[in-house]
Amino acid sequence: MKNFIFFNPARILFGKGQLAGLADEIKRLDCKRILVVSGRGSVKRIGLYDKVISILKDMGLIFFELEGIHPNPRLADVRRGIDICKRNNVDFILAVGGGSVIDAGKAIAAGAVCQRDIWDYFAKRYEIEGALPLGDILTLAATGTEMNGNAVITNWETKDKLSIGSSHLIPKFSILDPEYTYSVPKDQTVYGIVDIMAHVFEAYFSPTPNTPLHDRIAEGIMTTLVENAYKVLDNLKDYDARANIMWCGSMALNGLIGTGKEEDWATHDIEHEVSAIYDIPHGGGLAIIFPNWMKYVLDEGVDKFVQYAQRVWNVQDNGQGDREIALEGIQRTREFFDHLGAPSTLKDYGIGHENIDVMAQKAVRFGPIGGYKKLYKEDVANILKMCL
Amino acid sequence: MKNFIFFNPARILFGKGQLAGLADEIKRLDCKRILVVSGRGSVKRIGLYDKVISILKDMGLIFFELEGIHPNPRLADVRRGIDICKRNNVDFILAVGGGSVIDAGKAIAAGAVCQRDIWDYFAKRYEIEGALPLGDILTLAATGTEMNGNAVITNWETKDKLSIGSSHLIPKFSILDPEYTYSVPKDQTVYGIVDIMAHVFEAYFSPTPNTPLHDRIAEGIMTTLVENAYKVLDNLKDYDARANIMWCGSMALNGLIGTGKEEDWATHDIEHEVSAIYDIPHGGGLAIIFPNWMKYVLDEGVDKFVQYAQRVWNVQDNGQGDREIALEGIQRTREFFDHLGAPSTLKDYGIGHENIDVMAQKAVRFGPIGGYKKLYKEDVANILKMCL
Repeated sequence: MKNFIFFNPARILFGKGQLAGLADEIKRLDCKRILVVSGRGSVKRIGLYDKVISILKDMGLIFFELEGIHPNPRLADVRRGIDICKRNNVDFILAVGGGSVIDAGKAIAAGAVCQRDIWDYFAKRYEIEGALPLGDILTLAATGTEMNGNAVITNWETKDKLSIGSSHLIPKFSILDPEYTYSVPKDQTVYGIVDIMAHVFEAYFSPTPNTPLHDRIAEGIMTTLVENAYKVLDNLKDYDARANIMWCGSMALNGLIGTGKEEDWATHDIEHEVSAIYDIPHGGGLAIIFPNWMKYVLDEGVDKFVQYAQRVWNVQDNGQGDREIALEGIQRTREFFDHLGAPSTLKDYGIGHENIDVMAQKAVRFGPIGGYKKLYKEDVANILKMCL
Repeated sequence: MKNFIFFNPARILFGKGQLAGLADEIKRLDCKRILVVSGRGSVKRIGLYDKVISILKDMGLIFFELEGIHPNPRLADVRRGIDICKRNNVDFILAVGGGSVIDAGKAIAAGAVCQRDIWDYFAKRYEIEGALPLGDILTLAATGTEMNGNAVITNWETKDKLSIGSSHLIPKFSILDPEYTYSVPKDQTVYGIVDIMAHVFEAYFSPTPNTPLHDRIAEGIMTTLVENAYKVLDNLKDYDARANIMWCGSMALNGLIGTGKEEDWATHDIEHEVSAIYDIPHGGGLAIIFPNWMKYVLDEGVDKFVQYAQRVWNVQDNGQGDREIALEGIQRTREFFDHLGAPSTLKDYGIGHENIDVMAQKAVRFGPIGGYKKLYKEDVANILKMCL
């Protein structure tokens, strides 16, 4: 294990009806002027948005609304939000929606306080100096943003999808009611599951030795996720399945399974380049790329893939040899994504080889990517070709 | 899964040489007048205490020292500490030592601020209203106090060992350097391992259904603990073994595996009554009581014990039947504690039946105990008789 600092002060209110705690959470923060950030209508359709607004009105708070945040949230929307905050002395951001809405909220929270233009923190990697406090009500189990200090934003002018990370951006509170995810349609549910699984992969496939507890927690998340993915596809309103998937989502990216080890993140970096150009669903991109990444890096360390195959997929050792066991684990991953109905090739999105060179170049713009195996431009291009 | 609130803002600085971060942590809290709490010499013998004092001196801080905290920390020492704080306007507690030292520090931190006599919060269960900020440097992997808001104190006048819990008592930072545990002798190391295992049991054996991720994390902690217990007994200075056990200790009782479910804690309650009268090591008492508790409550829910036997001890299903599988898991637990050299009967401490009635009565003073099976006075007495 490597040295680490673990610090995650997000307050998680988990379960049915936890919206009842919203007023107390806001009171605790002593905020008065709120920007409510939301997406493109789903929170209104399920009646959540009206409930939130009614709570804010009952509290006599001043609030402003920023609606219409897109998936793969856009810098232009973030700028709109920052402008509202600055003009109105907003002192709290309340994000109501999925990961994109919360990520937009975080970027707005930072931009309202930080000295430079917000995009500089993404593109030039300046350190975030502070942020307005942010709380959220999560309606999609996927990104884990509800329990970490990360945000991913896309600049559509430059076709760059980049991230920031800071403890200033960890939500002061996150309300996680699995019932709010009942209405998430099957395809979005699947993308969320793939995203969570991918977050675990990025931490799990690490060159750092001797992290047995990290490994077992990661394996526990993956096993729980697989088991409950099948259940939720049978019944989108299975409370326990939705709850387990939601908690897996937070646990996958709250720092616990990644701290004290070198993580990978190459697959996420590659996917970001694909969706920055083609605007495909993040989970869809990951489902295509991850099994190919696994095959590409396998020989860098077969043992971890053997452990993965045996502990997560229960692949038996029948004397077929380690590499075959490992490949069987990768195959089972592909089959799981297939069973969920996730895409398996870039062709499924009509993407050909035309931008592979551009995407590979951009993926390594800050240097080689990945921890399990360092990937250079040519490696990224090779993996993308495997995805065609 | 039940509804839950998870909130754990402890900053964990984990690994070799993390003491280098102490000055920054104290600066961040902007504290000036510090009470340093320590035990009976081991932190001096390993040279840690002098290093800490030298850091405080270099920072130009005013500090006071409270030494000599005992295992099963005593109310009298807590009162001494509160008195120092009040007389000297102390604004920060720095606990340097094992769980007892940190627990004493927490009780002092609360007593220095709270309005009532500190023992009222233990004996009459008043809610803690606030506390001085506390940081710690941990030297023993065992109680998990470094990452939670709990403290256990013994009142030797009344022979009561009771606990308090509050988010005010969660350490602002905890420095966990596995090298500081190198000099912990074998018996104390073993008691720590048993204590950690017992914390996992208390959360794991729960009547709450459908907590698959909690279960798997708990099983991951137990498996990692067993694997590393054997390693550390072979070599008390095995860094990775010490590191893994230390992180297991924090993870076992930081809320993650217990939140959202009914926990048990009967065995801890019973052990507290034993050590409140006989002052035996907490881990030793737990090693005696837990396997007997398991046998006593087994028929309340055999399935969870089967899962435990299979996933933690790899007990194979050879058609022997669920109850036999479960009993094999309990037997393996006993054998593990035996292998560590932990005691197996109260006789090992020269304890007979003379106070069983008193201990059973006190264990249920606030009502029946336990979540897996509710235990009344007679049940507690029965379990203690099994321990003779």
